[in-house]
Amino acid sequence: MAKRFFEDFRVGDRFAGGSILVSEETIIAFAREFDPQPFHLDPEAARTSLFGELVASGWHTAAMTMRLFATSEIGIVNGIIGGGVEQLSWPKPVRPGDRLTVRSEIVETRPSRSRPDRGMLKVRVDTLNQDGEIVQTFVGNLVAMRREPA
Amino acid sequence: MAKRFFEDFRVGDRFAGGSILVSEETIIAFAREFDPQPFHLDPEAARTSLFGELVASGWHTAAMTMRLFATSEIGIVNGIIGGGVEQLSWPKPVRPGDRLTVRSEIVETRPSRSRPDRGMLKVRVDTLNQDGEIVQTFVGNLVAMRREPA
Repeated sequence: MAKRFFEDFRVGDRFAGGSILVSEETIIAFAREFDPQPFHLDPEAARTSLFGELVASGWHTAAMTMRLFATSEIGIVNGIIGGGVEQLSWPKPVRPGDRLTVRSEIVETRPSRSRPDRGMLKVRVDTLNQDGEIVQTFVGNLVAMRREPA
Repeated sequence: MAKRFFEDFRVGDRFAGGSILVSEETIIAFAREFDPQPFHLDPEAARTSLFGELVASGWHTAAMTMRLFATSEIGIVNGIIGGGVEQLSWPKPVRPGDRLTVRSEIVETRPSRSRPDRGMLKVRVDTLNQDGEIVQTFVGNLVAMRREPA
């Protein structure tokens, strides 16, 4: 995959990627380690929760999204290095059997004022299930090195 | 641990929790599954990256933070259910040997307009290393059921 520098990105660029099939086993394994709550751990206990069924931790969805995004065709030369994200939300729960894909798009490119060797890319990253419903969305701020320092 | 309803929370409430010692092994294991980039996978390759050393994926820090937050004394009756977070950022990298703790504080309480049986809690969640440096911060929006519907 060709590696891209800051100058190679344009607003509107999109990047193809793969998919992940979510299983009950991986939902429970993630929850045991990072989010041990009944509605992420136990299908029976989840029935009486606000969700009514076993659902993935939002942070599990975020982690799976990172896998799909990091292995997509975005190909930033220095890798995907983000200082933070804005407005991360989980509009719909992720359930066993869901197949997730990621849709990412450059929404802003901005040379760094303080660091002439790099720029910032703002990227909207939406995670969709097999029905095309958005299960997670955020806008991330990424660092990208310049081919030619400003 | 006593379970708390929406009415039991006040702005300024803080919740004690435990700590997690971060190891090279857990950083690499998380990265293999969710963020397979050289600076999260391989100490040698990380030396020539922008970080200059092996660092944890920001999403790993987020997941560890959720473990510390979910197992803290916040004790919301319906569990920790969040629709999203605002301004998630990673001001400092997390490295092998770091010991992480979480400092959480209620910054706003708001009855739901549309759902008289619940309210929203806005919580600032800071993750600190052993030197007291903030390695991650966000403000999350949580649902809490009311003891008495409005």
